[in-house]
Amino acid sequence: MDFSGSHILSIDQFERSDIEKLFSVAEGLESYANKQKITKVLDGAILGNMFFEPSTRTRISFGASFNLLGGSVREITEAGSSSLAKGESLADTAQVLSGYSDIIVLRHPEEGSVQRFAESSRVPVINAGDGSNEHPSQALLDLYTIREEIKQKGKNIDGLKIALVGDLKYGRAVHSLCKIVSLYDDVEIKLISPPELKLPKSYTDLLITSNVSFSETENLEDGIKNVDIIYVTRVQEERFQSNQDAKKYKGLLSLNKEIYTANCEPNTVIMHPLPRDSRKDANELDSDLYGNPNLAIFRQADNGVIIRMALFALVLGVEGQIEKTAREVNWHVSRDL
Amino acid sequence: MDFSGSHILSIDQFERSDIEKLFSVAEGLESYANKQKITKVLDGAILGNMFFEPSTRTRISFGASFNLLGGSVREITEAGSSSLAKGESLADTAQVLSGYSDIIVLRHPEEGSVQRFAESSRVPVINAGDGSNEHPSQALLDLYTIREEIKQKGKNIDGLKIALVGDLKYGRAVHSLCKIVSLYDDVEIKLISPPELKLPKSYTDLLITSNVSFSETENLEDGIKNVDIIYVTRVQEERFQSNQDAKKYKGLLSLNKEIYTANCEPNTVIMHPLPRDSRKDANELDSDLYGNPNLAIFRQADNGVIIRMALFALVLGVEGQIEKTAREVNWHVSRDL
Amino acid sequence: MDFSGSHILSIDQFERSDIEKLFSVAEGLESYANKQKITKVLDGAILGNMFFEPSTRTRISFGASFNLLGGSVREITEAGSSSLAKGESLADTAQVLSGYSDIIVLRHPEEGSVQRFAESSRVPVINAGDGSNEHPSQALLDLYTIREEIKQKGKNIDGLKIALVGDLKYGRAVHSLCKIVSLYDDVEIKLISPPELKLPKSYTDLLITSNVSFSETENLEDGIKNVDIIYVTRVQEERFQSNQDAKKYKGLLSLNKEIYTANCEPNTVIMHPLPRDSRKDANELDSDLYGNPNLAIFRQADNGVIIRMALFALVLGVEGQIEKTAREVNWHVSRDL
Repeated sequence: MDFSGSHILSIDQFERSDIEKLFSVAEGLESYANKQKITKVLDGAILGNMFFEPSTRTRISFGASFNLLGGSVREITEAGSSSLAKGESLADTAQVLSGYSDIIVLRHPEEGSVQRFAESSRVPVINAGDGSNEHPSQALLDLYTIREEIKQKGKNIDGLKIALVGDLKYGRAVHSLCKIVSLYDDVEIKLISPPELKLPKSYTDLLITSNVSFSETENLEDGIKNVDIIYVTRVQEERFQSNQDAKKYKGLLSLNKEIYTANCEPNTVIMHPLPRDSRKDANELDSDLYGNPNLAIFRQADNGVIIRMALFALVLGVEGQIEKTAREVNWHVSRDL
Repeated sequence: MDFSGSHILSIDQFERSDIEKLFSVAEGLESYANKQKITKVLDGAILGNMFFEPSTRTRISFGASFNLLGGSVREITEAGSSSLAKGESLADTAQVLSGYSDIIVLRHPEEGSVQRFAESSRVPVINAGDGSNEHPSQALLDLYTIREEIKQKGKNIDGLKIALVGDLKYGRAVHSLCKIVSLYDDVEIKLISPPELKLPKSYTDLLITSNVSFSETENLEDGIKNVDIIYVTRVQEERFQSNQDAKKYKGLLSLNKEIYTANCEPNTVIMHPLPRDSRKDANELDSDLYGNPNLAIFRQADNGVIIRMALFALVLGVEGQIEKTAREVNWHVSRDL
Repeated sequence: MDFSGSHILSIDQFERSDIEKLFSVAEGLESYANKQKITKVLDGAILGNMFFEPSTRTRISFGASFNLLGGSVREITEAGSSSLAKGESLADTAQVLSGYSDIIVLRHPEEGSVQRFAESSRVPVINAGDGSNEHPSQALLDLYTIREEIKQKGKNIDGLKIALVGDLKYGRAVHSLCKIVSLYDDVEIKLISPPELKLPKSYTDLLITSNVSFSETENLEDGIKNVDIIYVTRVQEERFQSNQDAKKYKGLLSLNKEIYTANCEPNTVIMHPLPRDSRKDANELDSDLYGNPNLAIFRQADNGVIIRMALFALVLGVEGQIEKTAREVNWHVSRDL
C-alpha cells in the first residue's frame, strides 16, 4: 500500500509489509510521544477530528497525536448534525468538511458510513469507528503492543500464542485482531468465552484458511495456560437484546491475581482494549492485578498515540521529515509523577 | 470602512470599496487556503469561536480559517450557557469572554444579540448569525463566488444576471445577497418562488431604490433562462407554523439536469448556500447535476474559508504582513483525492 | 512547595511564600496576557482541559492561558463520559487520559474526585472545581486582584480590610478566600449575610486561630463602611432545598450607587467572582455601578488568565524561560475597542 494520500478505512487494506512499515515509523515516533523531543513536522496542517458519536478517549488520542506532530485540530463532538437533519447527504457533508482540513478522522454510528464519506472526501479519511464495523487503528495499536511486549522476551509475532477472553461474538476489537494476526506465521489462539458468545464462524473460517491454529473453551483457567498474551474484553452490553441477557455473562470470566498466578507462565502479558468494567459484578480484570508489571493495558492505550502519529505521518507523507524539525523539550516532564 | 479593530456585524456596513478591498485580500489568501503555502501571521493570537447555537460547518469554517493564519482557537459549542442561566447579562458575558481572546466570532439564537454583545466586548466581534437577522460572511462569500465564477467568462458583477430560487420570504442568505448586489450597477434579478414565499416588500423596495431591475415568477423554467447564476435555496422548514405548511413547498422548484439543459445558457453557474435538502421529496438540486462543472456549491463553501481569512486579516490589521511568514507546505496535499 | 511537577488540588497546599512566588511569576506574565508580547515557551506541550461538568468561562480561561504560553489544548466538554458509564474506574480514566497530555485541568461534579484522579494521573493535575469542595485558582486570582487593586493605594494584603457579602454559607469562593487571607497579618473581615447564610463555624474557627479579626452583620450599609474591598457573591440557588428558600434571600443585599456613595470610603474596590445575577429580583450589583472605576469585576476575571498562566509555568517548570521566546505582537490589539 502507498500510504501517502490514502484513506485508512479497514484493517483489510493492510498487508504484512504495510504493518512493518507502519511499526517502523511508529518506533521512530516513540521519543516524541514520550516527550524526549518535540517535532513540528505538521506545523500549519489541520486535522478535522469529526466525531458524530461520542468517544472521548479515541477523539482525544487522535487529536493529541496530531498536536504532537505540530498540527492544529478542529473538532466535531456533537452526536447529531444539524445539516444531516436538514436532509443533507453524507456525500455533501464530506465535500464541505473536506474543504476545511488536510486530513479527516471520522467516527460515525452507521456501518459503512465512513467508506461512503471517504468516497466524496477531497482529503484522506481515517476510520475511527463506523458502528460495529471497523476501527483499524485499534487493531494496529493492539498488534504493536503485542510486538513491543513480547520483543522484550526475545519473541516476535510469528509464533505468537494468545488467549482471547470474553465476548468474542460482538467484540469488534477481537474480530480485527483475528484478522491482523492471520497475516503472521505459526500463531496459536485460545478462544475463551461462554458458548453463546463464541467467535462467529466467519472469523474461525478465516483462521482456518490462514493456518492459524486455535481452540475454543469456556474455562478461563485452561485457556490462559501457556500463552504469551491474555487479551480480555468487555461484554458489549449495548449489543444485547436486554440488559438481563447481558448480565448473565458479566463476571463469568473475571481474571484476578490468584487465577493468574496459578495458571499463567511467568510474564504473561495482560491486555484489554479499555474501558474495562471495574464494577464488582463485572470485574473483568481484578484490581489486585494493578501492580503487576505485566499488566500492559495503559502502555496499550499509550501506544494508541504512537500508532496514530505514525498513520498521520505516513498518510500525509512526512515520515521522512520528522527529525528535521526536532527540538528538545524545555518543560518538566513528569510522566511517572 | 477602516476594518482594523472594527466589529463586523451587518452587511449594511459595507460599501462597494470595502468589498473590493476585502476581495483583493481574499485573492491573496487563496494560495494559503489551497495549501500551496502556509503563513503564521497570527501566531500567538487567539480566536474565541463562540457558538451559542449549533452550526457545525460555520463554526469549523471560521476556526479553520483562523488556524490557516497561524492562530489558536478556543470554542464554545454549547447550546445553553450556564452563566446566562444564572442571570448573567449579555454585557457581562461579553466583558468576560472578550478578556480571553483577540477576536470573537459569535453565533447566537436571538436577533440583535450580537450587536448588543459587541457593544460590551473589548475585542472585535464578527457576527456569525443572530437568529434570522444577519450573517454577513455568508453574503460576502456568495458575492466572492459569483465574482470568481463569472470572471472566467470575462464578466464582472456590474451587469450580473442572477436568478434567486426557492424560499425568498424567510431565506436570510437571499436577503443579504439582495442588499449586497444592490451596491453594483446594471444588475438584473429573477425572483423565482411560490407566491406565498415571495421576497418581502422591504427588499423589493430596496432593489427599486438601488436601480436593480427584477422580475418575479413562480415558473422555474422561465426564470432561469438567460442568467449567469442560479442561486437555489432551501425551504426554511423551521420558520413555518407547521410542518404541513412547509411540506407544500418542498420539491416545487427542484432543479435537475433536464431542466437545466433545456433552459439555461451554456455555463450557467449553480450556487446554493448549503446544506441542500437531498431527500426525495425536496431534491433542491438533483443528484444528476453532480458532475456538472458549473455546479459551484462546493467551491462556494471553500470560498467561505478564504473570505473568513480575509476578514480576520483585515480586522486584526495584518493583511500586509502575510507573505512575511510564508513557507512552503511540506506534506502531501491531496485536495482532489 | 516545589511547584514543578506538583498537583494543584487545594488552597491548603499554599503557604505564604508559595503565593508570593506565584504572584511574582504572574506579574511577569501580565504583558503577555495584555498582548504587549507573545511567548512560545510551551510550544509543543499539550493541556488536557477536562471538564466533566459544564463551566464555559473557567474552561476557556484555562485553555486561553495555555495558548498564551504557546501550548496546544485538547478538551472534554461533555457532562457525562461514555467510559464511566461502561463501568470504568476513575483511576483507569486518569491513567489513560494522562497519557494524552503534559498537564491536566480537571473539573468534576463529585467532591474529592479530582484528588482521587490525581493519585492515578501520570502528569500534574490542576483542580478546576470538584463539586462544592475546592477550586484553588479562583481563590488565587481573587487574592491577586485584591493585591493589585490596593497596591495602587500604597497598601498591601497585610492590614487588609474586606467585607464579604451574600451567601457565606454555601459560597465556595468565600470559603477559600477566608483560608487564603488567613495567611496574612492584621486582616479584618466584615461578614455580611442573612443569619441563615452565615459563614460556617469551621471557617470562623479558622479565622480565630489565625488571628483574623472579624465581625458579623446582616446590615449591608454598616458592613461596607471603612473597608478596602467589598467582595459580593451570588446566592447559590442550586444548593437550596427549594427554589422558594433561595428566593427569600435574592436581592436582600443588593449593592447600588446610592448605598455605595453614602457608606463607602472613596475608592473602595468592588469584587465579585462572577457570574453575577443581574436580574431585577437579585441585582447583586446594580447596573448604575457600571461606570465606576472601582468596579474591579472584569479586571478580576482577566486576572484569572494571568494566574492560570503562572500556575502552568510553575508546574511545568518553565517560569525562567518565558522571555527567551518572547516576540512582539504584530496584529492590531484593541482591548478597549
